[in-house]
Parts: sequence; structure tokens; C-alpha cells
Amino acid sequence: MKFVCKQSDLNSNLSLVSRAVPSRPSQPILSNVLLTANEEDQRLEITAFDLSLGLKTSVSARIEEAGSITIPAKLLNDIISRLPPGEIILDDSQGEEIITLTCQTGSYQMRGLNSEEFPELPKVEEAKTVDLSAEALLEGLRGSLFAASNDETKQVLAGIHLIVRSESMEFAATDGHRLAVVETINEKEIDTEDLQVTVPAKALRELERTIASVQPEKDEPLMVKAYLEPGQAVFELGDRRLTSRTLEGQYPDYRLLIPESFEILVSVERRELISALERIAILANQKSQKTDLVKFNIDSEAQVLSLSVEAQDIGSGRESIQAQISGESLEIAFNVKYAMDSLKNIPNDNVTIKLNSATTPVILVPLGGTNITHLLMPIQLRN
Amino acid sequence: MKFVCKQSDLNSNLSLVSRAVPSRPSQPILSNVLLTANEEDQRLEITAFDLSLGLKTSVSARIEEAGSITIPAKLLNDIISRLPPGEIILDDSQGEEIITLTCQTGSYQMRGLNSEEFPELPKVEEAKTVDLSAEALLEGLRGSLFAASNDETKQVLAGIHLIVRSESMEFAATDGHRLAVVETINEKEIDTEDLQVTVPAKALRELERTIASVQPEKDEPLMVKAYLEPGQAVFELGDRRLTSRTLEGQYPDYRLLIPESFEILVSVERRELISALERIAILANQKSQKTDLVKFNIDSEAQVLSLSVEAQDIGSGRESIQAQISGESLEIAFNVKYAMDSLKNIPNDNVTIKLNSATTPVILVPLGGTNITHLLMPIQLRN
Repeated sequence: MKFVCKQSDLNSNLSLVSRAVPSRPSQPILSNVLLTANEEDQRLEITAFDLSLGLKTSVSARIEEAGSITIPAKLLNDIISRLPPGEIILDDSQGEEIITLTCQTGSYQMRGLNSEEFPELPKVEEAKTVDLSAEALLEGLRGSLFAASNDETKQVLAGIHLIVRSESMEFAATDGHRLAVVETINEKEIDTEDLQVTVPAKALRELERTIASVQPEKDEPLMVKAYLEPGQAVFELGDRRLTSRTLEGQYPDYRLLIPESFEILVSVERRELISALERIAILANQKSQKTDLVKFNIDSEAQVLSLSVEAQDIGSGRESIQAQISGESLEIAFNVKYAMDSLKNIPNDNVTIKLNSATTPVILVPLGGTNITHLLMPIQLRN
Repeated sequence: MKFVCKQSDLNSNLSLVSRAVPSRPSQPILSNVLLTANEEDQRLEITAFDLSLGLKTSVSARIEEAGSITIPAKLLNDIISRLPPGEIILDDSQGEEIITLTCQTGSYQMRGLNSEEFPELPKVEEAKTVDLSAEALLEGLRGSLFAASNDETKQVLAGIHLIVRSESMEFAATDGHRLAVVETINEKEIDTEDLQVTVPAKALRELERTIASVQPEKDEPLMVKAYLEPGQAVFELGDRRLTSRTLEGQYPDYRLLIPESFEILVSVERRELISALERIAILANQKSQKTDLVKFNIDSEAQVLSLSVEAQDIGSGRESIQAQISGESLEIAFNVKYAMDSLKNIPNDNVTIKLNSATTPVILVPLGGTNITHLLMPIQLRN
């Protein structure tokens, strides 16, 4: 194997793909990236795979001799990222598992591992793919990913439940404490039966990052080719491919959790509420506190929403913001972090908080625009 | 006590002073900042003190009632930094040790501690102060601080040995492995006998930061008023005062360590050498390596300096850069980190490495300009 490519191309693609390299690999070869030099299309494929998430991309290269090799990802990444811009030559002429990197200023030898041992990424069956709008995917992921559990032992709760219908897509996430549901409308109808999969949030965070890093061409909506079926989800965007196992098990019937009617509606400027919460959170986050609890005092008469925290032995704080309130006054408490997460993952300027009582589920929705529904469970206050 | 001041003023000065708040205070009150409201000059003094390093500054305020109080530094800092710009009112009308902060959007109550318990900062005897050029101090500190030991049990080695003479200043630091000496010339002669103190590097890093944060007025060289004597060092820059205990004990006679003549001189472009070292360092820093060792191969015939690292079972690397070499060829090894630290703390474009043999002290000096001398001990190579 021997090829010549640009430092900048190799650098950006290596750091992208390296995100699928596990920090604690179950097999030594998973710490490596697979480099495959194809003579026909004169491209170098770069692959990383942690057996759940796989990332693959390719860069233009002058392939002088086809072949493949795996190299420790971190070592290669660290060296490539510090090289000066210009051409880099990689070859294995020193022996099959020794890669020599030659650049303008010097040369490096790295010990690799035989590429035959590298596990293969799942293949896509072309016939079964659907084309999804990258913009809609981004909107759905941004509005829901925060609510998925970070604990991988929580099974389906560590994933996003994705439903693709011919006319819309739906993204749902819940960690058992809060719920986020986003629905997006397909600009063009998709020729498909309803598809439902639960994909690990970790993989979809990479998909979000990948989509966000690609500049759409003018007037041409960016599309992601997706292959979704129980067991495996694959997303392709240009040269980049992301594969992920799916999560098995019944996803909770989340629609049942969302109340159908509300007694109290509170509309506020989202950023103003976030700023007030951020200040109040300082007191809520003090070590003496058992829960990071913030009280929302909804004053219907004054049309004011007040936030307050009492931190024993430390102090207390109260912030007030103007609100449009319909219904009766109410005092209700939330976990500061959950309230903040939700507000930060709504893109709109204004939000409406919909409530019935201090002990029943509360809904946050943006005022107009995207179809996002966030559900928070209040914390019961002892008197 | 009651005063009104600007959020921006309080915020910037609080975060500056808070750097003297110990992370593990020996007494609870040391976690607090002391706020003193002076009616005469309508200023609020802010003080923090960890019993070794003390920082004090003041901000303009409308003092409605003089007085003083201490407040937990981190809590106050966290809240103030997140408040919107505008006026802030602080008062203790709710009780002597309860401070109420009122701003546009809300109010906070914090539990403070009686200011009488706060230890007093050492006082300055006006007669004994000397005026030092802030620029020269900055140059001296920047060229030497890196070489001081970070281990406070190392006594004087955790400090900078500062000598103030009427015509020059000298800064020396050594952690036992390397040595840095900087000499600066006083533009105006200082009316003083020779002063010698060893000041903790931690305090002088704050002095460096303080000087660097102040914009000198046009055409008016910035001066630091210093009071230096065994036991105590005090530096004043405008409203800001830094006090520090000094380190006791005889400082090593470092001049004796610097060889007087050299057989080999190697001049290189400093940034080029740093870049090459940064790449090579990746291999030197691998876990399998016992020492972070890099070989310098000085090739007098080819006028090339090559750096190389062999990392067992991982790989190897070699970088070559053009150099002006006089004397014989030589192979010598250094700790990568020490070589890098030294190169990064020389401000000039070119450096000269002065050597005699692979086992004797090596000197790095900038080519022209500032009077900086860095000494590195080579690592002996086994054959």
C-alpha cells in the first residue's frame, strides 16, 4: 500500500471518524482506524468501529499501490494534526504491519495491525433506503437528544425512537424523568411504509455533528440516505457513512403521558427565563441541597413568573420576569437542570408552559414554528 | 453597610481578587472575600487572602452607608458574573451577617461572616518602596516562571529569586532540573541598595497576570511600586495590591552552574524547532516510555539538527530542521517537556543552543534582544 494525500484532508476526516474509536476497546484492533486505498476511484477510505457505532469517510488521494492497514487512531491523529500543511506519503514498504509516514519535515514509523482482523461495517441493501431531509433530521435531533438517558444500561431509554412516515418524521426521547417529542413534516412525500427504530443517542449525536458540519449546496436541500430496520440503522451523507446497531425492546407509549388539556398557560421570553434560571441555579446547585429544586411562582394577577430557591445555611434568591398568564395562580417546583435542558433545546424566541396542577405533568412548547413538545414532571413540595 | 455599583466593575474585580481565595481554606473565613465600603473616597475595597498571597483592589461605588462584610467568594462571584449589566445594590439591613443583593431582575440573600475575623493584609512602609518598570517585570517573569518548582514543599525552589539593583533587575528560577535567569536593565536608575528576595512563583504568576491585564497609558511607562524585604513582598499597580510572604532559606548560587565557554553553537528558528518537538513529543509521551526523551542529532557537516524518538512497540519518528552549526557534530538527549518549556518562554524569533558535550549543562539563549539564559541538563544515553 502506498498513497499520497493532503494533510488537511486527512486531518479533518481522521478526527471525524476517530469519534467512533472506543476509549476502552474490547479488542486491541478497535483502537485503530482502518485505512483502505482504492486504486480505481483514487480515494482513501477511513473507517472506525466500536462494534455499535461505525463511521466511515473517504478522502481524495493519489493511490500508488492499493491495499489496507489499521493504525492506532489516537497516535495517527495526534501526529497528522500537528504536521504542517502539504503532502503526506504513507506506505507499508518497511514490512506489512509497519507504516511509514513521510512529510516535508520528517518521517514517522508506526506499528499497525493486519486489516483482515478489523470487523466489517454492516452493509446497506440499496433497495430499502429512504431519503430524509438533513434539515428535518437536525431539527428533530436537536429538540430531542437532550432527553435521552446517558446510561446505556437503560436500554431503549438511551436511544431516540424514530418514526419515519410518508408525510412526517417523529423523534422521541425520555429518560424516565422528562420526555421530548418532535414532529417534522416531509417537504416531499417519502415512498415508504411506516418505519420505527430506536437508535442509540450516542450514534445520533454523531449524526447531528456530521450533518451540522456539512455545508448544503445552494438551492439543493441536503439529503441523508437512511436504511432503517430492526437491528441496524445506516445513514449516508455524501462520502460519510454512519452505522449503528439499534436498541431492542418496546419503546414506551409516550403519547399517553401528554395531557390533552390544560388549566394554566404561561408564555415567556425563552432567553430571559434561561438567564434567570442560570442565576438561580447557582443557589440550587450548592452542596447542602438535596435536590436541585427551583420554585416557579405563577402570579396570574400580576402577570409575573417568579423563580425562587432557598439554600439552607447559604442563602436564597428570587428572580421575576414578565409573563402572559391565563388561568389561576400556582406554585410548582422543578429540577433546575431538567427545566434548563428543555428551554435550551427549543430554538424559538418564546415558549409556553402548559400546566394543570403542582403535581401533574407540565408541557413546554415553542410559541409557533416547530412542533416540539417537552414534558417535565414537577417535584412535589412538602409543606 | 449599603452601596450601589456597576455589575461590570464588581464582576471583573471580584474574579481578579478571587484568585487569592484558597481552594482548601484552613479557616472558613478564607473562602470569603472582604468587602469594605469607604464613605470618604466612595470606593468599595475587595480583598482576598490565603495567608500567603493577598490580593486587593477597589471599585468606584456610591457608598450610602460605610461598613464591611465578608461573603463566600465563589457564591458571590458566580451570581455577579451571571447578572445582567446595570446597577447592583448590596446591603446588610437584614441582619449583620446577611447580605442582600438587589438587581434589576431579582434579589439574593447570602450568609456572610463578620469582617473582624478576616486576617489583615500586611502593611507597606511607604519609605521603603521602589518603583519598578512593569514592562521589565513582565519580561523577567515570563522568561523565568516556567522553571520554578510547582511543589511547594521544595521551599525556595518554588519561588523566583529576585534581585533589584540600581541599574538592573535579575530573575532566577530553578526546580533542580533546569534553570532560567533573566536580567533586565532599568531605564531610570533606582535609588536603592541591592534588594534580594525569593517570592513564591504562585504569587508572581498573579503579578504577571495583573500587569498583563492593565493597559499602560500612552507615553507613560507603567510602574509597579514594590516593597521587598525578607518576610514580605508587596506590589502595587494603580488600585491593585498584591502581597505575598517570601520564601526563607539560601537561594542556590546558580551563576556557578552556567559554563563559561562552549565548543558547539547551534542556531535555529525557534518556532520551527517547537513545531518539530511538538510532533516528536507525541511519540515521547507514549505510556511505554520511561522518560520523555528526545534525541538531538547535531550534524555539523550537513548543518542540520535532527530530532528523533524511538517508542518501543509503538513506532519512531525523526524530524530535521536547518541550523547554523559551529563546532563538531554531537548526539545529545533531553527531556522533551523541559526543552519545550524553555523554547516557549523565549520571546525571540531565533535561539542559540550552546553545548560542550553530551553530559554537561546546555544553555539556550535568544539570538539578540533580551538577556535570557536557560540551562538544561542533558539525559545520559545508554549505548
